[in-house]
Order: sequence, then structure tokens, then C-alpha cells
Amino acid sequence: MSVGAPKFPIMHPVGGVLLGTHCAQIKQNARDDLLVIAMDSGSTCSAVFTQNLFCAAPVVLAKKNMSEDPRWLVINSGNANAGTGAKGYQDAQSVCLALSQILGGHAGQVLPFSTGVIGELLPVEKITEALPEAVNSLIEENWAKAAEAIMTTDTFPKGVSKVVEIAGDKITVTGISKGAGMIQPNMATMLSFVATDAKIENELLQQCLQQAVEQSFNRITVDGDTSTNDACVLMASGFSGVPELLAGSEPYQQFCEVINDVFVELAEAIVRDGEGATKLISIVVSQAINDQEAVQVGKTIAHSPLVKTAFFASDPNWGRILAAVGRAGIANLEVDKVSIFLGDVCIVSSGAKDSQYTEAAGQKVMAAEEITITVCLGRGDAAQTIKTCDLSYDYVRINAEYRT
Amino acid sequence: MSVGAPKFPIMHPVGGVLLGTHCAQIKQNARDDLLVIAMDSGSTCSAVFTQNLFCAAPVVLAKKNMSEDPRWLVINSGNANAGTGAKGYQDAQSVCLALSQILGGHAGQVLPFSTGVIGELLPVEKITEALPEAVNSLIEENWAKAAEAIMTTDTFPKGVSKVVEIAGDKITVTGISKGAGMIQPNMATMLSFVATDAKIENELLQQCLQQAVEQSFNRITVDGDTSTNDACVLMASGFSGVPELLAGSEPYQQFCEVINDVFVELAEAIVRDGEGATKLISIVVSQAINDQEAVQVGKTIAHSPLVKTAFFASDPNWGRILAAVGRAGIANLEVDKVSIFLGDVCIVSSGAKDSQYTEAAGQKVMAAEEITITVCLGRGDAAQTIKTCDLSYDYVRINAEYRT
Repeated sequence: MSVGAPKFPIMHPVGGVLLGTHCAQIKQNARDDLLVIAMDSGSTCSAVFTQNLFCAAPVVLAKKNMSEDPRWLVINSGNANAGTGAKGYQDAQSVCLALSQILGGHAGQVLPFSTGVIGELLPVEKITEALPEAVNSLIEENWAKAAEAIMTTDTFPKGVSKVVEIAGDKITVTGISKGAGMIQPNMATMLSFVATDAKIENELLQQCLQQAVEQSFNRITVDGDTSTNDACVLMASGFSGVPELLAGSEPYQQFCEVINDVFVELAEAIVRDGEGATKLISIVVSQAINDQEAVQVGKTIAHSPLVKTAFFASDPNWGRILAAVGRAGIANLEVDKVSIFLGDVCIVSSGAKDSQYTEAAGQKVMAAEEITITVCLGRGDAAQTIKTCDLSYDYVRINAEYRT
Repeated sequence: MSVGAPKFPIMHPVGGVLLGTHCAQIKQNARDDLLVIAMDSGSTCSAVFTQNLFCAAPVVLAKKNMSEDPRWLVINSGNANAGTGAKGYQDAQSVCLALSQILGGHAGQVLPFSTGVIGELLPVEKITEALPEAVNSLIEENWAKAAEAIMTTDTFPKGVSKVVEIAGDKITVTGISKGAGMIQPNMATMLSFVATDAKIENELLQQCLQQAVEQSFNRITVDGDTSTNDACVLMASGFSGVPELLAGSEPYQQFCEVINDVFVELAEAIVRDGEGATKLISIVVSQAINDQEAVQVGKTIAHSPLVKTAFFASDPNWGRILAAVGRAGIANLEVDKVSIFLGDVCIVSSGAKDSQYTEAAGQKVMAAEEITITVCLGRGDAAQTIKTCDLSYDYVRINAEYRT
């Protein structure tokens, strides 16, 4: 199930970034589950990782290898290699070593990523046996296959691709993401790999990545559970021929906007594919004192099982939204300044049911597949949007049956 | 559905505390939905209320009336009188006034309580018409009827009653509670009314209440949603003949222990009746630096939809517990000192899957209806227990259909 699954777009190749996939039969043998990405030697690369303290072995190793001028990424689905202790770390190293030997580099230049079930040892042999085939298939045109290879409980592949003009020249940004459950990325994201042919040095690329993640992956939640394996990588090959993007320049600003757009679309695709999702819910919290409190209120609403089940039922049970705002931990909130809208319909004004509100009007908004809630706190000028989905029978089914 | 619904116990009357019920037909006419409790004039009374900023009109009024030597409680189910603004407050006042006129006191001596759907106006006329019948039925033996009158989505009435010896004399403690959903009491509780015939002054009674609530209602959660209407009242009539309980005395300590036991049982009954619950899960977090961090870890696990659905499926998917510990926001947690037990079975040691762990051993524990998870953080000596239930299809059904 998913909310308006976006049609998979045409994925523009990014010069200097090659992708290859193969089926390593880690958990299934119906589709590819192994992806290798190779960057040209002049590329820069930035990344953010999960803040979960029990971060997976590949996350620990990838963080370490970020300082060694990474050239290759190796990603498997079907096994998270998390909660696997010292053996898990050795296994991630073995995979990196195997790939570097095929490609003629050293193991430190490989960033490993894993996604899937937690707590089972990585089937290293299956992966290393499949690596040569994945490497043999490395081409710039493989983004669609790559998007499928990183799926787990996802019901559709997620990709975004844009060609935009910056300072009179064209640059390409193409990226993929995966994720449907255990989704509340925190300072990081689920797996997402985005590449561009812009030329930009590492530190600036990292800044661009962080601000984009903050406004995209860090503003979505499916179930409030932050994964052990979240990671997001932004690669820049410099192949576009566009002059290097410099800090503070107009072209850099334009570049950041494009990256933001791509990230927001990739993040929203994850919510649309939220486990069991039947609705896409955008929660706009405005008139907050600062962004942090807007996010806090938005996430409290987004995580309320009562709110989520009401949306599943298309029930305008606004009392549950009001109750969530009231327990969001905002000090000195004056409840009689709070108003809440369902779409364009005012449901709460001055802290109580709006006198003009009718159940029929609320019902009409709730019947839609994509719904916006707006909460005005009456305190300041900050606003943030959190995107989430509803809580359905299928969420319970998917997660009760996950390992069977 | 519920987890091992406790047999409703014999409810020992408390001298000086009378209860009367009637059906005001607020939402249904199959059972009583209105309860009046009358305390003898010499009684003391303490209470705690929800911390939800959108607290209901009756909560606002009851808090105010706590300073006016309260004599009577009036409680209705079927309507929460929350999110109803100024009109809701007037309605609560009208009910208090009507009761005080029947009983010959002033309106400020009445504490009002409401529970049920949020955002609909209180049917004041229905309630005031039913009040005389409820008053006519006031007797000390009505605790069982009272427990039924305050139910909403509860599937069984909840009561605890104890007669204990303190300093050679007998005192009685009898109480009721209600609640199944929108349950994460925060410094307060769902509706609970407990009476004793001990003699104890107001301030000390309030202290006793607060420490008991902290260890009982504030340690349970069904769905993480703190209600707008939570309230817990402890009344003391002084009818036992036992000398007044004094601060710091041995009898006061014994009294507190009894109150704690009663509260813990009443709180656990709410979790057993958690909406859609099929399992009672006790999460013991030990070796924490302080209680606050133990509670934080326990509640993060208890609120994880992934953990809750795994318990529903009787699936020892321990990776989800580990991931929840890792995202609980504990600064400087050394993950390799963490161990986790499912019942007596060690599933995680030194931060990774225990080498002795077998799926069969975990499965055996998970098959039970009542399960204990123990998380040892390896940081200190503090320990706290959080009680919760699983997340089932029925939770979604109950909350998707609540208003239909």
C-alpha cells in the first residue's frame, strides 16, 4: 500500500558516477540486492549518518572511511549488519576489502551501507561472490536498477532527477532513496544516494548536504523509530564543466535550492511508501517562537497513534490533534491563542472548537488522500512542516509478520 | 480484548464515603454513566490532574475548587467536556451548582470530572436531570457500580480494595480507575478515585498521593497520548478510629506503602485493558544513572510501534528493542555495556546479540501473555519499571471506529 506512488522518473545519468547491481540472494532471489557505486577520481563526497547510538557496523566503518577520499560505495539490502558486534565490523571490512581488490584501490576508499533485518550476521560470502558481476555492470545509466536494489519493505523504487541551469550552464542532480518503516531520521536519513556533476569542494558539499537533510529527511516520520542504519550520501563528480561552486556565491545558492528540492521529493517518497500508509499528512506548525518548537509540536502530532488512526478512518477527530498539541511540552503555551486548520477548514480557534466548524466540512477534507493540518501557535514567526502517514491495519500486519 | 482481566474484587466500604450512580444517557443508555461521591464533612482530599495544556473544563474547575474544602465529586463518562472553551467551563459550573443545591452546600465544594469524546458540549440537562437519582442512591457499598459508571472504552471495571493493620488498628483503602486509550499519564493519571478511612491532614495526604502516582500511573503507557482529562483523587474520611497519621511516623510509612500497592494495581489494570491489548509488557530499565533516564529509556521502548507490533506477533525481534534504546536520547551511553533480557533469556550482551541466545529460547518467552524485558544500561544503580501493552489490529480498529 502507498499514497499516490509517484511514477518512477527518467533518471538523467551523472557524468563520472557509475552504478552496477547484482542479486547476491541475501534474503530473496527475485531481484538485485547489491549495489556498487563508483565515483570518478576527482569527485567530492559528503555524508550524514544515523544518530542512533546502536549504529550498525557499516555506519561505523563508513564514518571512519569518509576521511580517506572515498571512491566507491557498496550497498546491500536484506541484512542491516546491526547489533552484530565485532564480527559485524569485520564483515563490513571484508566486503570493502573484496571490492577494493577488484577495483584496484585500498579498502579505506570504500563506504559500506546495509539495510534490512537487525541482528543477523552479514552473509559475506554471498556478497563477495556477487561483487564481480555488480562491478562488471557499472555504467552511468543504472540509476533505476540501483533504486530497486536498495529496497526492503518499500513497495516502489524512489528516484528524483533534475537538469537545471546554473550560471548559464547545465548541471544534473540525480538521486535515489529507500525506506518505509523504522523512519524518524534524526540528523540523518534512511539510505539515500544523490549525485551531481557540479564541481564543489568537500566541505561546502557537506554544508549543502546538511542543510538539505535538515529540511527534508529530518522533517519526515513514519513511526518515530530512528533506524540503526540511516545514511545519506551526496556525491559531486565535477563532470558538468560548470565552474566550481564557491561559498556565498549566487550559483552555490541556486545549487543548494536544487539539492533541497531533490531531497524534499526523495523524503516525501518515503512517507508515501510508509508501511501500510493510505494517507500523506503534512503538518504545518506556524507562529512558533523558533523552529525547534515548531518541529516538536509537529512531531508530537505526527507520532500520536490516536491522530494516525483517526486519519486512517478519515475521521475529523480534531480533539486528538488538540490533545497532542497540549502534551507537546511547550512551556507557557497560551492555549486560547491556538488555532488549528484541517485543509482550509478552521476546526479550532481561540483554543476551542470554532463556532463555524461543521463535521461535514471536516469530513470532506479528511476524505482526501493527501491532507494538510495547520497549527498556529500564536507565539512567533517560525514555521516548520512535518510529513507523516496514517496508522492502518496494514502497518500492524507488515510489522507483525516482518520476520516470518 | 484485554490481558488476563482481573476478577473484580470484593470492595470494602470506606466509612464516611458514599457513592451513588445513575444513567444520564450521555452516550448510551445500557449502563450508568453518572457517579456522585460524597465525603463526610471531616474528610481530607488530595488530587493530581493532567499536565496537558489543553486540560478540560472540569479539570480547570476542579483544580480551582480544591482550595474550597471539597465535599462532593461528580463524574460523568461519555463526554470529556474538553476543547469546549468558555461554554464548557460554564457547563461544568452548572453541574456543580445543581449538585450543591440538591445536597445543601455551595458549588465550590464540588469537584467535577468528565471522560469521553473531546470537543462536544456537555449535555448539562441530561446530567442535572439524573443527579437527584444518583444522590438518592448514595451508600457506602456502591464501589462496584461506581467502577462501571466511569468506564468508556474500558472492557472491564477496575477496582482494588485492601483492609490492612496499621499500628494495631485496621484501615481500609478502596479505589477505582478507568482508562484504556489516550494513556500516558504525566504527573497525573486517567480517572482514579481512591478512598480511605484513615485520618490524615490534607497536605500530607497530597504528598502521599504524589509519590504513589509517580510510581504507578506515571509509569504506565498505552499509546503515549496524555489525555486532556486525567485526574486522580485520594480521599480520607478519618472514620477508621486509627489515630491521625503524622509525617515521618512509622504508621504513615505503612500507609504510603498500602496506597502505593493499591495505585500500582489500579494502574496495571489500565494497561491490561489497553485498547486492543493482548500482552502485558513490563519494561525494567536498570543500571541507569538516575530514575529520569531509566524512565526515558523505558518509555522510548514502550512507545515504539515496531516493538509493540513485534510483541503482538510474539516475535522476539530484539533488534527493535536495541534500536529503541539507541535512540532514547541518553548522552554518552556506552553501547557495549548494554545487556537486554527477555524474561530470563539474555538476548543482548556487550551491546550485541548474546552468543548463547537462540531464537527458540526467545520465542518461548514471547509466547506468554505477560512478558518482562530487562535492559541493563551499565551506568549506575537506578532502576524503574514501565508497563505497557502491545499494538494489535484491534487497537487500530477501536481507534479508527471510535466515533462511528
